[in-house]
Amino acid sequence: MSDKKLQVIPLGGLGEFGMHMMAIRYGDDIVVVDAGMMFPEAELLGVDIVTPDLTFLKENREHVRALLLTHGHEDHIGAVAFFLAEFHVPVYGTAFTLSLVERRLEEYEVEEEPILRPVKPKDIVEIGPFKVEFIHVTHSIVSCVALAITTPLGVIIHTGDFKVDPTPTDNELFDLHTLADYGKRGVLLLLSDSTNADRPGYSDSERAVRPRLEDVFNRSESRLFVSCFSSSIHRLQQIINLSEEFGRKVALVGRSMIAVTEIAHNHGFLEIPDNILIRPQDVMSAKPSKVTVLISGTQGEPMSALSRLAVDNHKNLSITPGDMVVLSSRIIPGNEKTIFRMIDHLSKRGADVLYGSTNPPLHVSGHGSSEELRLVLNLVRPRYFVPVHGEYRQLSKHARLADHLHHVGLEEIFICETGDILEIDSNGARKAGRVTVGRICIDSGAAGEVVGDMVIRDRRLISETGIVLPIIAINKHTGRIESVPELVSRGFGLEADTEFMRSARDIVVKTLEESNAEEKMDVGVMKEKIRADLKRYIHRHAERRPMIMPVIMEI
Amino acid sequence: MSDKKLQVIPLGGLGEFGMHMMAIRYGDDIVVVDAGMMFPEAELLGVDIVTPDLTFLKENREHVRALLLTHGHEDHIGAVAFFLAEFHVPVYGTAFTLSLVERRLEEYEVEEEPILRPVKPKDIVEIGPFKVEFIHVTHSIVSCVALAITTPLGVIIHTGDFKVDPTPTDNELFDLHTLADYGKRGVLLLLSDSTNADRPGYSDSERAVRPRLEDVFNRSESRLFVSCFSSSIHRLQQIINLSEEFGRKVALVGRSMIAVTEIAHNHGFLEIPDNILIRPQDVMSAKPSKVTVLISGTQGEPMSALSRLAVDNHKNLSITPGDMVVLSSRIIPGNEKTIFRMIDHLSKRGADVLYGSTNPPLHVSGHGSSEELRLVLNLVRPRYFVPVHGEYRQLSKHARLADHLHHVGLEEIFICETGDILEIDSNGARKAGRVTVGRICIDSGAAGEVVGDMVIRDRRLISETGIVLPIIAINKHTGRIESVPELVSRGFGLEADTEFMRSARDIVVKTLEESNAEEKMDVGVMKEKIRADLKRYIHRHAERRPMIMPVIMEI
Repeated sequence: MSDKKLQVIPLGGLGEFGMHMMAIRYGDDIVVVDAGMMFPEAELLGVDIVTPDLTFLKENREHVRALLLTHGHEDHIGAVAFFLAEFHVPVYGTAFTLSLVERRLEEYEVEEEPILRPVKPKDIVEIGPFKVEFIHVTHSIVSCVALAITTPLGVIIHTGDFKVDPTPTDNELFDLHTLADYGKRGVLLLLSDSTNADRPGYSDSERAVRPRLEDVFNRSESRLFVSCFSSSIHRLQQIINLSEEFGRKVALVGRSMIAVTEIAHNHGFLEIPDNILIRPQDVMSAKPSKVTVLISGTQGEPMSALSRLAVDNHKNLSITPGDMVVLSSRIIPGNEKTIFRMIDHLSKRGADVLYGSTNPPLHVSGHGSSEELRLVLNLVRPRYFVPVHGEYRQLSKHARLADHLHHVGLEEIFICETGDILEIDSNGARKAGRVTVGRICIDSGAAGEVVGDMVIRDRRLISETGIVLPIIAINKHTGRIESVPELVSRGFGLEADTEFMRSARDIVVKTLEESNAEEKMDVGVMKEKIRADLKRYIHRHAERRPMIMPVIMEI
Repeated sequence: MSDKKLQVIPLGGLGEFGMHMMAIRYGDDIVVVDAGMMFPEAELLGVDIVTPDLTFLKENREHVRALLLTHGHEDHIGAVAFFLAEFHVPVYGTAFTLSLVERRLEEYEVEEEPILRPVKPKDIVEIGPFKVEFIHVTHSIVSCVALAITTPLGVIIHTGDFKVDPTPTDNELFDLHTLADYGKRGVLLLLSDSTNADRPGYSDSERAVRPRLEDVFNRSESRLFVSCFSSSIHRLQQIINLSEEFGRKVALVGRSMIAVTEIAHNHGFLEIPDNILIRPQDVMSAKPSKVTVLISGTQGEPMSALSRLAVDNHKNLSITPGDMVVLSSRIIPGNEKTIFRMIDHLSKRGADVLYGSTNPPLHVSGHGSSEELRLVLNLVRPRYFVPVHGEYRQLSKHARLADHLHHVGLEEIFICETGDILEIDSNGARKAGRVTVGRICIDSGAAGEVVGDMVIRDRRLISETGIVLPIIAINKHTGRIESVPELVSRGFGLEADTEFMRSARDIVVKTLEESNAEEKMDVGVMKEKIRADLKRYIHRHAERRPMIMPVIMEI
């Protein structure tokens, strides 16, 4: 046995939603698992993305050896660019995951050439005192792995995100055998995905959406718009297959939809039949019953293709009464109002919108429910267990699911939150203090700006960065602006009724005037438009970048 | 046939959530159906309740004959006090519904004695040219009616809120026979509840929650906290019955829980066994396995009993590890984050929290799903159909559910929104313009203030009422305040760094200091506390009532 300590330190994603990142340290060597982002909540309006605070890693800069990626979702890879800007270490992941990372790195123009090390399931790499095996798991994106990290003190299993899909559409089964082998030999610590720990039973297989989608294709007599996460390659494949069977051409609409399908196609994860694709600008002239549009924007993101379509402001597409719109996706908590507002707009345009929990389902989760979590717990039979990936309620439910393992060798369950240090040595495991953690708010500026021009906001210092709050009252029923917009500011050096502030207010008025009534009825869209226009104006004319938080009152 | 026109004018609740109110006019006579409120959305923060704009009715003051109430939910009766302050006309409703109205009227100290006219199902009252029959329907609250309003041009059926529960717990079946009779004789216009039009199949019977609740009582070995809407009398009865069977005493916690159960008990709708009730202050000293606490606050309302319990700030109660908390309720869209935050806090205190969609269910909806709506459509077979009660997506789904009736006499479906005039005369039906509608935002001040002291806010005039935005940055993980609070204001005459504004800022600092770490991690609680304290201070020292909208940034 070693006399060095093993430390497991979540830097994001435990007790909060998204932004997954974890440091695993043995003696002087640190490997980092995932580097994800979260999309800002309403409370964080005024920033574009949020990433974990890297202070702890920076304080241990010389010990950071590698970044290990489990899969290509943004909440696991969205902060890789920011990580690599600080730590020039090798990044391990499957070829597909690394391609998604490369796409992001291009956007940010990272200076040093990244060291990307593609791995395949069952590969084993040695990094300092760690031996890491990659284990194939099933999830809503392709090419996902769990990690078996052998340390001098024992084996750590990190599941990444997973479900146990018995019939994945690509027939690549979850590698339960390898997991079982580790379990048989003895596992020191299990870190397992808790996202769906509060759901009973089993999650449906990805194949479960096929009957309902087939029914939709059978019934649809006009254009069919299907929206799902662009990373849901299995789902896209099923929709493309159905389109082929029903003689529909397929248009890909939305930047991420086009980029991700291309990457998936290049890696052989997405089969696209010859001549099935048509360009977005050709959709409206094709026969309506012969077109499927795969469109991004399931969460009602204000500037997404689907949101623009909903308020009739898309450059290529519009809804004709009789069209069907299918949301083959979940509603991320917090986005309900925005998504429902978008559905209302689509309904007003005459679309039949299919959404929500139905049976058979339009969408299945990529995360395992209680019984799948128990299956993994029972196969791994760890000595210690830390539920990961979830808010506190999911972590605590997951902990309860492991209670029965106390009879077969489980010594202790730790519910850790981001920042907690779990320390393991020859005497056992314990919580041992906390490290600095937090959220870095990043204002990416207009699309296309590079990382160098990003403004990392310290939201504690309003007086330094300044804040501008445009306040607008909009009539919900008519979209009419019911007041002259007010501009309230602080710490911006321009509080008073200056010429500049009056001009800034005119910008808001102009943005309002140039929006159509439907856009004006959509609070989310208007907040984004006002913010973008005002940001550009203030930056150009005052070379300042205050936080801009539009307050729209529906009256 | 008459030569006068019939007009149906929704004044709230069509194309928006809550705040139901409708004017039905024949010639010079107007009856109003329901007078509901809505709880403010996040966009309306800074007000307490929202009611429909009464401008149209005021412009026709001398024609308003009566208010007809379908049932006692706040979104149908919450604006009665404001209606009666303007129109001293009789109010018709069941005795139970009117008792709930009286309770609200007491709070507001309305000047003139209200004219309350209790009715029973099958009663028929004549009001000017209208003959109104009250028809018993099933819903999540007891004593609900639909209305059959006979006019010179034909019969209007207004369903109110309903589900078609085949096995209601009080055995009072939906009076389908009377509805069928009207349908047979011919109905001019059906106005039917669309709330669940986007759900397929049938809603479960209220009895469907019994197996799951019984399972909870079987498994619970400590205190059992059950939260449901205080108006869900059927649900409360089932929980009280189970408590009796399992030898548990029952404590009622929360102001509305106590008031509503008393009213229901007085009217014979709630049976409370002798000696089963204990006082909230005796809960913690009773044997944990022998107590059920019925507690209000399912929506995570910041000042509710359950929210206070979650942050360990309730004067009588606290959570002990091993307690169970059951949310026997739905999540109203928009409240997800607040409710999940509350569940996180309860989980941290060691409670096992049961919530969400499960099978068998912890909660069933009080509104009919697609097939129940079709049943009512098929029984009534109206000439015209207007879906009511729902946002646009639900109204349009409901319209689609009626399509097949075009074969059996349905002439036209109108999707109307709040403010639209539907006009019917001997030539048929059509949309005929719009009336003034809107939302009145009411700031009720501290609890106990009367209507005379209420401030009805015209949110268009920020410059007149003023706005104060306290801005605070709180660390989500520790609850630590990460900055000196900033106070931004406008139209308040006190923009500058005055002594008064510095003192106001000190009030915010004091509120923060006096809150415990868990409260500080709950954005909703902190916004409410800061708003209340600052409001009191500013009113006392400046005799002003600006809008106060705290901005809390989680970092």
